[in-house]
Order: sequence, then C-alpha cells, then structure tokens
Amino acid sequence: MKKALSGVKVIDLTRVLAGPFCTMMLADMGAEVVKIERPKTGDDSRAFGPFLKGESAYFMCLNRNKKSIVLDLKSKEDIEIFKRLIAKADVVVENFRPGTMEKLGIGYEELKKVNPGIIYAACSGFGHSGPYSKKPAYDSIIQAMSGLMSITGQPEGIPTRVGASIADIIAGMYTAFGILAALYFRQVTGVGQKVDVAMFDSVVSVLENAVVRYFVTGEVPTRIGNRHPSIAPFTSYKTKDDYIIIAVGNDRLWEAFCRAVGRPDLLEDERFKTNKDRSMRWALLDEILGEVLKNKTTEEWIQILEEAGVPCGPINTIDKVVKDPQLLARDMIVKTIHSVAGELLVPGIPVKLSETPGKVETPAPLLGEHTEEVLRTWLGYKKEQG
Amino acid sequence: MKKALSGVKVIDLTRVLAGPFCTMMLADMGAEVVKIERPKTGDDSRAFGPFLKGESAYFMCLNRNKKSIVLDLKSKEDIEIFKRLIAKADVVVENFRPGTMEKLGIGYEELKKVNPGIIYAACSGFGHSGPYSKKPAYDSIIQAMSGLMSITGQPEGIPTRVGASIADIIAGMYTAFGILAALYFRQVTGVGQKVDVAMFDSVVSVLENAVVRYFVTGEVPTRIGNRHPSIAPFTSYKTKDDYIIIAVGNDRLWEAFCRAVGRPDLLEDERFKTNKDRSMRWALLDEILGEVLKNKTTEEWIQILEEAGVPCGPINTIDKVVKDPQLLARDMIVKTIHSVAGELLVPGIPVKLSETPGKVETPAPLLGEHTEEVLRTWLGYKKEQG
Repeated sequence: MKKALSGVKVIDLTRVLAGPFCTMMLADMGAEVVKIERPKTGDDSRAFGPFLKGESAYFMCLNRNKKSIVLDLKSKEDIEIFKRLIAKADVVVENFRPGTMEKLGIGYEELKKVNPGIIYAACSGFGHSGPYSKKPAYDSIIQAMSGLMSITGQPEGIPTRVGASIADIIAGMYTAFGILAALYFRQVTGVGQKVDVAMFDSVVSVLENAVVRYFVTGEVPTRIGNRHPSIAPFTSYKTKDDYIIIAVGNDRLWEAFCRAVGRPDLLEDERFKTNKDRSMRWALLDEILGEVLKNKTTEEWIQILEEAGVPCGPINTIDKVVKDPQLLARDMIVKTIHSVAGELLVPGIPVKLSETPGKVETPAPLLGEHTEEVLRTWLGYKKEQG
Repeated sequence: MKKALSGVKVIDLTRVLAGPFCTMMLADMGAEVVKIERPKTGDDSRAFGPFLKGESAYFMCLNRNKKSIVLDLKSKEDIEIFKRLIAKADVVVENFRPGTMEKLGIGYEELKKVNPGIIYAACSGFGHSGPYSKKPAYDSIIQAMSGLMSITGQPEGIPTRVGASIADIIAGMYTAFGILAALYFRQVTGVGQKVDVAMFDSVVSVLENAVVRYFVTGEVPTRIGNRHPSIAPFTSYKTKDDYIIIAVGNDRLWEAFCRAVGRPDLLEDERFKTNKDRSMRWALLDEILGEVLKNKTTEEWIQILEEAGVPCGPINTIDKVVKDPQLLARDMIVKTIHSVAGELLVPGIPVKLSETPGKVETPAPLLGEHTEEVLRTWLGYKKEQG
C-alpha cells in the first residue's frame, strides 16, 4: 500500500534519541530512511540497555522501519560513497554537535554542491547559531535551562525533570515537521534548504502560556503540583488503593460531582459556590475531597464519576498503559519481529492517515544489514564492489 | 518573502490549545490560516486570563499569524458559506469531541463531497475510533492515563503532572506533522485524506523507552526524580543560592568534574571508579556531591564546570529564560503589536528554515477581524454581502 512519504529518500546520520525520533516519524509515514552508522559500534544507543538477546531495546524501539548501512565518514573513500548517496537523496538529517559535519567536509554548503535540492536538517542542543551553539547539551540540561523543570513538580518540592526525554523528542518532532514543510516547498518550487532545530528553542516554545503570563503579570510562574491554575477541583487525589485525576471544569460538573460522591451538602457551601470560589480555596477543597475520595478504590470512583459524566481517569503505570483497550484498539502497541532479538512490542504510530496509513513494517536493522542492498539499488553497485 | 507553506489555505475550527497550537505551526510557516469562530464569544480561550487591556494573553500567544472570521455553524446560511470556503481550502482542522462535526453536518464524508482533495485533520482526546472515543479529555487526564505522570516526579513523592500542557501540545504537533505528510502526498498524487490524532496515543508514543523497558525487563518504570537511570552523577543539586544540573556522561568527564570541584580524592575512591559503580551508588554519591556543591553559587559552579568542559546548566525560572542570550540570539522571544492590547512578547518559531524563514508577522486577530476580507478574497463577496 502506498504511504504518504513513499518515494522520499532520507539519509540519516542521527544517533541516540532526538534525530532517530525524527527519522522514525518519517519512516513510519513511508519514507525510505537509510541510517548511516559507523563501523563496529554503530549508533551509540545500540549499547544502551536493557537488552533482548544482546540487542538494545532502546535502539530497536526507535529504529523500526529503517535501513542500516555502515560507512566510515573519516575515510575518503566512504565520504565519496556518502556524497553519491546524497546526490540521490531528498533529505539528510544529522544531530551532531554544530560544526561536526563541516569538520568531516560534509556541511550543508558542501552537500548543496552535490545536490542543490537537498533538504539538510540539523537537530542540536542549542542550534547552529548564537553564543551557546557549541555547548554540549543533554535532555536534562535543556529541561533545566528552558524553564520546564521550574514549573514542574509539587509546590513544596524541588524543580522536577519530566520522566521521559521530552526535550529530545520535541526537538525531533519539530525537525520532522520542518523537513516536511521544506519538502512541500521544494515540491512546489524545486528549492532545497537547511532546517535548523534546537532542543533549547523547542522546549521554550512548548511552555504553553508561562512566557506570556510572566510578561503580562510580572509574576514568575512556579510549581503548582498536579492542579489547574484557575479551575478546581481539577487535580489528583489518593483513593483507597491508588490515585485518581478529576477535571471538574464548570459549575454544572461540580454539581454532578458532589452528588456522585455523596456530598450534595457541598453544593450549599457558600465557600465553593462558583469555580472562582473553589479555585481560590483549592487547598481547603483538596483536604475535604481527599477525605471523601480515599474511601473507595480508583476503579470504583471511575465507574461512579463516569456514570455522572464527570471527566476523570486513573493515573496509570506503564504495565496498565500497555494493556489499555483504547490503545490496543488504535494499534498503539505493535509487534515487531527482530531477526536476532525475536518478538518485541513497541509503541505504534500516533498519526492516523485514512488513505495512506503508516505501518511498522520492518524491525530495527542490524548494523550494516542493508549496506549491500542500498549501494546496489541507489548507486548500482554490484555485490563484489559493495 | 516567500514562506514554506505560502499559498496553503487552512480552515481552522480549533479552540483552546491542541488545535490552535497545530494551526499556529502551519501559520508560522506561511500557511493562510482562517480561524472560524462562533459569534460573540469566539474561541473559549479568549476568556482565559491573564488579560492585557481586556485581551487574553493565552489566546494572543497561540493565534498570531492567523485570521479570524465569525460564522455560526448552527445557522444554515453560515454552513453554506463554510462549505464554499472548504471548496477553496487545502486543509481543515478541528479539535471538537468526535462526532461533533457530523452533528453539524460537516463531517469528513460531507466535506469530501464539497472538496475531494481536502485534508481533514481532527485532533481529539482519544481519537476517532476505539471504546473511549467519545470520552471527555483534558490535558491532565491524558498525562495521567498515558503513564507520563507515573514516571514523572521525585521517588518519594506522588505522580506528577508536567507543568505545561504537554499532552495537548504534542498532539497538536503530531497533527501538524500529519497534515504536512498528507499535503505532500496530495501534491504528488492529488488525493486528500483524513488525519486523526489522539492526545492519548500521542503521549504514549513519547514515553521514550519506558514501554520497551517494561516489556523486556518486566519491571514497571517508576519515578526516579531528576537523575538519569544509568548514568551518574547526572542530576540536579542544590547550590549556595539555587540549583544546578550536571551531566557527567563518562569516566573522562568524571575526572574533569572531580578536579574542577576540588575533590580529586574521589578519583581514588574504589566505590566510584566506573560509571557502573557510580550509577549503582547514586544515593551515596548525591550525598557527597550535595555537600560539595552547596558551597558556591550556581553561577560560580557553572563558570568552573564549563571551563573544565563538564556539561551543566542552571535550572532557570521563566524570568531568566526570557532574557537568555541564546534564545534572544535565535529570535525565540519576539514582539507582537496587538491592535487593542498593544505590545506583547511571545515565544518565537523554533523551526529555522534557511530559504523560507518563518516569521511572526501579524498579532492574534480580533474576533471576526477578517470576516469581510476573507469572504471577499476567497469567495468574491462584496462588502455589503459580507
């Protein structure tokens, strides 16, 4: 079946997370992604545990649908092969520290000479310009510097890192978006270009309204735990066995909620009449509702509140997430069969296209698994040459 | 100057966050985004504080570069106008609860009749299929149900919501990516399609390796605070005046770090010889390093560690983020001049394209500001008709 990006050829120099996440998005939509890996070790993340029959699960979940070829970019001969591949490619993606590609003699200016229409995408910590450009960056440093940690966490606690490497991933997503914008433009005009995405910029752009809130009020946004800044009750509570999160977004839901939890008396309480009242007295409200909600299990409350039409949900741990019927119905947990590791379940593709659905078709490649195939099909090499 | 998506016409029915974030990404890249708002109140978020001269800062930061027209989608006449606009559009985006568009008589099947090439993008809480499809969803409920909260927070603390509405935003980003993939496919083949993105699927897809880690090891990933699961020291520490985050990724950096902080004796300590040793004894290490790092200010430590080449950074609050020289150099804080509210600084555009740079050119529109203009230029209405 045809895919949205069928026929798009991507040369992928990326390693570890941000870049591989980007090229996974392209591969999932049908682009032919050829991962160029260095001899012997390949992508650093091939060494990240946990391992399944010696194969990195970390690597396998990010590199499905891709091909792997081995090239030594420090060898003149392989640089020539690399440039011949670039001449055939639509897109090249890298997430080296800025300057690395130039040192290898394959910066954008150089590659443009080989293929003027090439889309060159660079995903880095701080971007290809500005005073921090060459600084090393890791997800946690970017989460810290961007302000995200300062607004994440409990009010009485310390700034908190998001438990997934969201800085890498968001930058990877923006890079994929930028590549497609550039690809569309090239399809219309024939003109290629460079896409430069920084993790730092990316995270700042998703701080939601924290930035404008600060500019308008002068108050520095801080950590408010799990609650909503201006709606209550809209937070998490302990139940008899676990936690629950509820979202009582308006007065109608407040009424439904109070009746459902057996506290219609709260509806008469002047202190909680309107959302404004409740929001102002959120601490008192949390105390009262905490006493109520601790009396039943999460499952019991969810049944009761859902029947009453009150938005709510469990705080799932990963073992529950992967069995969730909605996610299973949406093909969000899919099986790959790796040639060495065997069966591995990985997260599916969240972008559902009606005519050209993405699919996890091939497992992550072995190091260099497709060297011969790609050199033959892209460059016409015969077996003995490759 | 030409932009990557110049000429792409987007009809935007979205409200609040996920959808408007998606159409902002398209507008920032040059698409003509026409926001359809209901009479009198418009997008709900126009009522979200804080306000600047009566205008919502929340709305203004998400709706720059867009046009606004007022249509009443419950009126037959306006539905006709809406369909005439659809006939001229490339893309339509909505983030209603699934089923709403069908009730209004403008579901995908209906709009396809008007414009077979239309790209119809829907961004919802749980998606347009599956048992939860019609359930109400809010960012915090999705953060809870997806597992993200279960892995975010301090080990001794409770599951923690990310301080920005990351579930909405990531879904909006995927929707924008899906639209461009579909647009590219349409450019090549002429075929339109539906893009269906769920917040729930989206967040599960960015849990990084938590899902495969669970499948491979059988252990349920949990909250580990700010540290790295398998590298140490790679976490945050208190300093004399604030916090610092450090990322000592290998033994070479460990040596540089110990010398820089004046504790070369730790290099001789058998308990901390290799990363494996340090990672195993992270709690002991944190105690020792906490004692060291509390003796100087964050700024002092950053100067010392940067000189030694050790990756590190401050945990910035928003007031510091918006003044950061790197972000300013990258145009990540930009000025808009709103016709009523006046000057407002908003986050810039993180996708930097060399040939067709995005730009924040116009401020968020007033409700219905472009009704006359759009009906005239898209449909040829004369002033008295519009």
